Order: sequence, then C-alpha cells, then structure tokens
Amino acid sequence: MDNPLLKRVYRDSLSLLTDLYELTMAYAYWKCGLANRRAVFQLFFRKHPFDGMHAVCAGLEPAIEYIEQFHFSEEDLEYLKGLKNRKGGPLFESAFLEQLRTFKMELNVDAMEEGTPVFPYEPLLRVEGPIIAAQILESALLNIVNFQTLVATKASRICFAAAGDHIVEFGLRRAQGIDGAISASRASFIGGCHSTSNVLSGKLFGIPVLGTHAHSWVMAFDDEIESFRAFGKALPKNCIFLIDTYDTMKGVDRAIQVAKEEGIDLIAVRLDSGDLHRLSSGVRKKLDAAGLQKTKIMATNELTEQIIRDLKHQGAPISLWGVGTNLVTAKDQPALDGVYKLTAVTDEKGKWQYRLKISEQVIKTTHPGISQVRRFFNDKGNVCDMLYDLDFGPGNTIVNHTDPGAKMKVDPSWKHRDLLVPILREGKRVYRFPSLEESRKKTYEELDQFNPGMRRFLNPQIYFCGLEEKLFEEKIAMMEEIQKK
Amino acid sequence: MDNPLLKRVYRDSLSLLTDLYELTMAYAYWKCGLANRRAVFQLFFRKHPFDGMHAVCAGLEPAIEYIEQFHFSEEDLEYLKGLKNRKGGPLFESAFLEQLRTFKMELNVDAMEEGTPVFPYEPLLRVEGPIIAAQILESALLNIVNFQTLVATKASRICFAAAGDHIVEFGLRRAQGIDGAISASRASFIGGCHSTSNVLSGKLFGIPVLGTHAHSWVMAFDDEIESFRAFGKALPKNCIFLIDTYDTMKGVDRAIQVAKEEGIDLIAVRLDSGDLHRLSSGVRKKLDAAGLQKTKIMATNELTEQIIRDLKHQGAPISLWGVGTNLVTAKDQPALDGVYKLTAVTDEKGKWQYRLKISEQVIKTTHPGISQVRRFFNDKGNVCDMLYDLDFGPGNTIVNHTDPGAKMKVDPSWKHRDLLVPILREGKRVYRFPSLEESRKKTYEELDQFNPGMRRFLNPQIYFCGLEEKLFEEKIAMMEEIQKK
Repeated sequence: MDNPLLKRVYRDSLSLLTDLYELTMAYAYWKCGLANRRAVFQLFFRKHPFDGMHAVCAGLEPAIEYIEQFHFSEEDLEYLKGLKNRKGGPLFESAFLEQLRTFKMELNVDAMEEGTPVFPYEPLLRVEGPIIAAQILESALLNIVNFQTLVATKASRICFAAAGDHIVEFGLRRAQGIDGAISASRASFIGGCHSTSNVLSGKLFGIPVLGTHAHSWVMAFDDEIESFRAFGKALPKNCIFLIDTYDTMKGVDRAIQVAKEEGIDLIAVRLDSGDLHRLSSGVRKKLDAAGLQKTKIMATNELTEQIIRDLKHQGAPISLWGVGTNLVTAKDQPALDGVYKLTAVTDEKGKWQYRLKISEQVIKTTHPGISQVRRFFNDKGNVCDMLYDLDFGPGNTIVNHTDPGAKMKVDPSWKHRDLLVPILREGKRVYRFPSLEESRKKTYEELDQFNPGMRRFLNPQIYFCGLEEKLFEEKIAMMEEIQKK
Repeated sequence: MDNPLLKRVYRDSLSLLTDLYELTMAYAYWKCGLANRRAVFQLFFRKHPFDGMHAVCAGLEPAIEYIEQFHFSEEDLEYLKGLKNRKGGPLFESAFLEQLRTFKMELNVDAMEEGTPVFPYEPLLRVEGPIIAAQILESALLNIVNFQTLVATKASRICFAAAGDHIVEFGLRRAQGIDGAISASRASFIGGCHSTSNVLSGKLFGIPVLGTHAHSWVMAFDDEIESFRAFGKALPKNCIFLIDTYDTMKGVDRAIQVAKEEGIDLIAVRLDSGDLHRLSSGVRKKLDAAGLQKTKIMATNELTEQIIRDLKHQGAPISLWGVGTNLVTAKDQPALDGVYKLTAVTDEKGKWQYRLKISEQVIKTTHPGISQVRRFFNDKGNVCDMLYDLDFGPGNTIVNHTDPGAKMKVDPSWKHRDLLVPILREGKRVYRFPSLEESRKKTYEELDQFNPGMRRFLNPQIYFCGLEEKLFEEKIAMMEEIQKK
C-alpha cells in the first residue's frame, strides 16, 4: 500500500478481517469446482434505524479501499496453514493456500454514493463476480458500511434537531475502539456535523477540529479565575471557557471578567451540566449585558437529538452543540441490521439463476435478481423509490415492500434517476470519490428533496418505496416453488 | 514500533488519537510554565453496566501499548503546525511543537489486572506524572479501557447465562468499525468466551476460531442436500451444517443423510431462526434417533444473555451458542460511563494538593487523592472492597459509596489484597502481561470468589464497596470548603 492514510486506517493486510466461514466456504467452493461461478450479492438493511424514516449511506470509500487492498500476505497464509480441523490435521489443503497467494478481487461493484438517503430493502451495494471473491467480502463490507451508515444517519437526525447550529462530534472517549471513533468522525461529518474533537480524524480526513478545555484544567489551579486567565493568555484567539466546574453563574462572571481584562475575543462559553435551558438563558443575559453578544453558548453532556430538539423548542440560546456517546455509538440502536445476500448465481452454462432466501414472513424474504433503485421526482421533490431488476426492467407499477396491497403507478410526468452507480469494473475503479465535504453537501441537498415531515422523530411521514411489479410477481412465484419442494 | 501486532492494531503513530482540548491544554500548561507540575488522574466508572453488579477489567495491555508507542511523528507535527486559530494565525507556537518532537510519556501507571472484577468508583487505572503527559492520554485511555471493559463484562454475563456451554463471538459484521470488532473479540475472550468467528482476531491474539457456513452456501446450489454433500466432502473433519435455510426439520434430515452417506463426524447443526426451544428439541430427537448423539446443536440469531438463560431454563438441548451484535456492541448499553479525573496535583513546592470535582449530587462528586483498592476476603470468598488513600492509609471502617449512612467495619480475621499493581515506572514496564488465556482464566477464578447471587440479571445481590472513613471525611471537608468559596 502506498497511500499512507490507508496504511494507517487499514493496516498492512486486513484480508483476514472476515468470519472463518467465509474462508471455509471459499475452500469448499474451490474443492467442488464452483469457485468461478459468478454470483451477485446485495447489501441492504430491513428496518429504519432509530424508528425514523430514512438512512444516509456512508462507508463506501473505505469499503472500496478494503476491496482494493485485499491480498493474502505471507503472514496471513502462514496463519491459515496452522489452522487445524477437529482431528488435528490441517484445516485447508496447501494447494488452496497457494491459490490464495495470488488471489485478486476482480469484482464489479455498483453502489449508492455516500450521502444518498436510502430506505429499507434497497441495495446500498451490489457485488458481482466469482462467488469465492464476492462471498469472502461479506463480513468486512457489512462491518464498514453498517456502522458508517448508522452513524451518518444519527448525525443527520442530530443536525435536523439543531436546525443549522454547529455540531461538534465529541465521542472519542466513549466510542467502540479506535476505528469506532475514527469511522464515526468520518460518518458524522458526511451525515452533516461540522467538526470533530478527534485530532486524528481531523488529520486523516481533513475534518475541522474544535476543542475547549476540561474540568481538570480548572481544578489544576487554586481558583477558577486564575485558570481562565492562564488559558486565555495562552490561547487568546481560540478561547472557549468551560464555566460549570464549580458554579455556572459565577463561572460566567469570571469568564466575562477575564475576557475583558485580557481583551480576549471569547468564542463561546461551555455548559456541561445542569438544566441547559435555565442556565443558558441566565448566561446569555450576563454575556449580553457585558457586551459579549458575539460570544456563543456551547452545550455538552449526553445530548441526543431529542434533547436538542426540546431545548431549541424552548428557545434555549445555545448555538454550538458537542455530541459524543449518543452520536458515535448510536446509543439507542448501536447496530444497523444490514445483511449481504446472494441474489443470483450462474449455472453450469453461465446463465443467471435468481435466488432468494425465504422466511416465515414474506417481508423478511429477500428480493432475487440483479437490482437497481430508481428514485422518481417532480418539481416539488422526490415522490417514491422503485427497486427493479435489470433484466425485467423498470415497469410502471410499484408494490410496497411491507404492504403488498399498496401499489403506486408511475406518473409519466415524473423524472427519475438510478441510484446505484458503477464503482469497480473487474476490480478497477471507474468512479471518482468526492471529497468528504462534497459528500456532506450531498447529504444536505438530497435530504432537502424529501418532504420534511419524513424527518420527524415521532410518527414521521411515510415515503413510498417498493418493488417493480414484475419483479414482485417473480418473487412470489419463486417463493411458491421453494415451498412446494 | 518493532512489534508487528502493535503495528497492525495501533498503526504507526496514534498520538493524535486525542481530543483537541488535550493538546490545547498541554499548550496552555506549557505557556504558563506548569507543564511539569505532577498530577494524578484516575480512571473509573460510576454505574454498573447492564443493571448488573460487576464489571470485568479489560483493555489494560493495549492501553499500555498505546502509552509506550506514544510519540509525535513528523507528519503529526506537520498537521499540528497547519492548525489555525480563529483569526487565521497558527494555533500552536512552533517552540511548543519543537517540545512535542521529543516528548516522552515518562509516567507511573498502576492498574487493575485484566480479568479483575471491578465496581463503580474504583480506579481501574491510576496515572501519575507531569500533568501535560498525563492529561494528553485521557481520550485514548478512555476509548480503549471503556470499550474493552464493557465487552468483557457483557461476555461474562453471557457465559454465566450459558452455564459452561461454548460461546463463539460472532460479531464482526455488526461491530462498530474494525477495531470495534477486533477489540471486542479480545475483550470477549477475556470475559469468558471460548472462540471467535473473526479470523484476524484469531491471528492477532491466538483466540480459537470457529465457523460454519452461510445461507448463501445452500442457496448457491439447486438443492439443500447437494449443498450439504459438497460442503461435507470439502470439510469432512470440520463440519457444521446450517439447517434452517428452507425448513429446519427437513434440513436436519438432509444433514443426517449426508453425514451417514459420507461418513462425516458431524460436529454440530446450526439453527439461525424460529423458536429455538421447539426446534432444538425436535432436532435433538432426530439426531439421537440416527445415532448422532455426539453431534451438538448450535444456536445463533440475535441472542442475548437473557434469551440464553431462558432457553437453558426451558431445557433447550443447545450447547454451542454464537453471539454477535448483542455482545460486540453491548447493545443494551453500548458505552461504559468511564471518566478520567484529576485527583491530585503538586503545588509550587512539589507538595500534593488533593482535588475533587464537585457535583450537585454527593455521589457524583469524585474522590480526591491517590487511591488504592483493597479487596477483603475470608474462607468463603470476597467480603467487600475499600477504596483508600495512599497517604491516609487503609483504616478499619468503610463508608458505602452511594449510601454514606451504610458503613462496614473490617473484621481482623479477613485477609486482603490490593488490586492496583505497578505497571509502568517512569514509562518503563515493571509488569509482565499475562497471556490472554491467563486473563480469561483469571476472570473465571475471580468471579467464583463472589457470591453467585451477585451475577443474577434481575435484582442482583449487592456487594459492599466504599471509601475508607478518613478519606470520606476529607472528601466531605473539601466539598464544604469549595462550596464556601
């Protein structure tokens, strides 16, 4: 790997970042001569996260970087060689490991761009290629895309609550591991956040970094005012005082006094405890009375989108929000239920055979085929999404995913665009990744094309999504045939 | 870094894995001439995770590796040099960045060993040294120790529910980022799990790896039985069939047929859907009737400690459990509320001044001083924990952390041991890290020393923990003094 960023974030070889069963299946495909059968896998989720109505795609670029870096190092092969079966013999034949030595991910990948709003059952990613290669990627692609999509979605909710205010992602200390923090900074920015406290994320991704000081700074001095003086003198042009170490209303007096004494252009004061509405209102009055109308009030302390919405609704004069745990761990739903399902495989003649995984519930049964997602829109914005099969084509009727009784006819006046775009062809990039700033802008612009009622936290307006009718009928026919067997 | 493991897991330089405010505070300490004041920071949590009664320490070794690798690379310094203040000038003076170039973490660290059961308010880690160094570590230490302790605790609960059955950690696809997965495998093993599906975790940490096959394997073939034959032929000595792709009770018949045809010593069959009690009972009968008494039943599918407990209670004949999302994201509480607080700082004469962070609630106020945790035990096991100050000494009376009215006298017949052990002295290791297998054994052995009622999920028995009485009185006096100001 030549890219130093990649080297840091993805290390020398991450090819073993996979579940063992991906490798045993690869081995078994190789043993039974099916390794080069072509297959299509599609990555999608089934349930709106956070009881909302949308999700925001993220994680595509690192997922593609993962595919591009994929190779088995000598150390990897050495490890695999040492794995034993239950009888003490080698788990894998050495001829198979020799195959892995030159293994390449020559895959075709189509995907939704980062920042695209996405709905249940719609593929975020479609992988086509030799089954052995497409299968091995399952665990890592899910790991990367599930988490970043989850956090970008959470970030978009928090930004919606804050209605344009600046959101700092603050979650490093409570994130789930190192990449849990770094990936969360990246996804938070795509989802709409403005900055991060995490310096490494700033360095790796160019996200603006922002910071204040800790209670420990104040406590290291004998007096709060002495601590403010020392901090203000050191950073007169970058100064945010944390004013709640002892007593917030006395803290703000001291902050004002030091700002005046030292001639500091105080960016903000930070509140980290207590009733944020009451305290921010009192603090605002004092700042204004002192002529510090431009000094903002920043709030932190286990904030969620619901708390921010309520404080905004009450008119709390806070305009800078630091959100940590609830953003980076997506605390109320810390995992997206994304899956990666086989939807088509070639037979011995090279002809596509569609596949679906049945379930007791029709709505949990996967969609077969090679899918594309078409988003229809008119002058007022987006109208509905249609999942269609590339072979059957788009058609004119959409059958709702979760309620097959509900159908929608495509109006000829609607325009449309297809959301899955070509990313890799035979393993080579055919897509230019936008900057993170561009993806972030895309999130804002695309979400603006939906009815804002869709973004309410309670009882959001439903956006119509479904299957093209011919595909729906094929699915039902396939289900009946499987059930007959 | 010479250690290839470290290089992979922690990359070349992770020194910027910190919140910006740690660096602005470091800069401000340097500017006001206090950078070499000595300080003590202690890392602890306030609330039992998962409404349980205990936590299991984990993450110490990677945290110490983090400290040992700490240095600012040229690239790091270049990045910091480019940071601007709000007026467009440099955020940091170049003389400060020059200091960072040769910066070393010459710290003294004492900590609880991994696998130690730990309770709220007890320091898992105590860091002593120049305030600038001890402060900078805050974010990364919390990131590493919070998450691994959380997951080790969750794993210990799941293992308790499974009452000795084999638990496979299965969470890679839903984990929060790459380290979210890898650190979770490590912590799960320390907490008591038996294996992981994550091959990279197996390679990095020597954890046994285990896998089966996916639904996609079955779906890639025209018939389920054909798919079992192909898999069984490829891996006759390592065979677990997933039998619920179409119909579990037909699936088990086919699994039995193939095992007999091919002479496969079938390790297990896996169920991934449906009512696991009803299905496992039916599958068990069929396996036994076919003479496959040794073939186990494995269950997966959004398992939690509560579901496993209920299935065990109902007598479901499952003895191999794959736990993913709920384990690796600690879904019902995805963050430990660990904090890293300044508890003492030297004055200009080099004398320790104790510090505490007051809060509206007495129980949220931090403990001052330089703490040690003493665990008392008698012939029947552990009796109680005392947090004491190294200067005041251990004393004979313990005041409960959350209910200061409750006190306990130390019985002279009790034995004791102190839980914080020396790890680093002036930055050098004075501790041999046990193997992961040893830490895992420690978890089991230490938890056995507590009343098992403590491990119930509902209404667990309370284990008595508190402050040594002189320290408690000092704390109250300090609080009163601060409130007077």
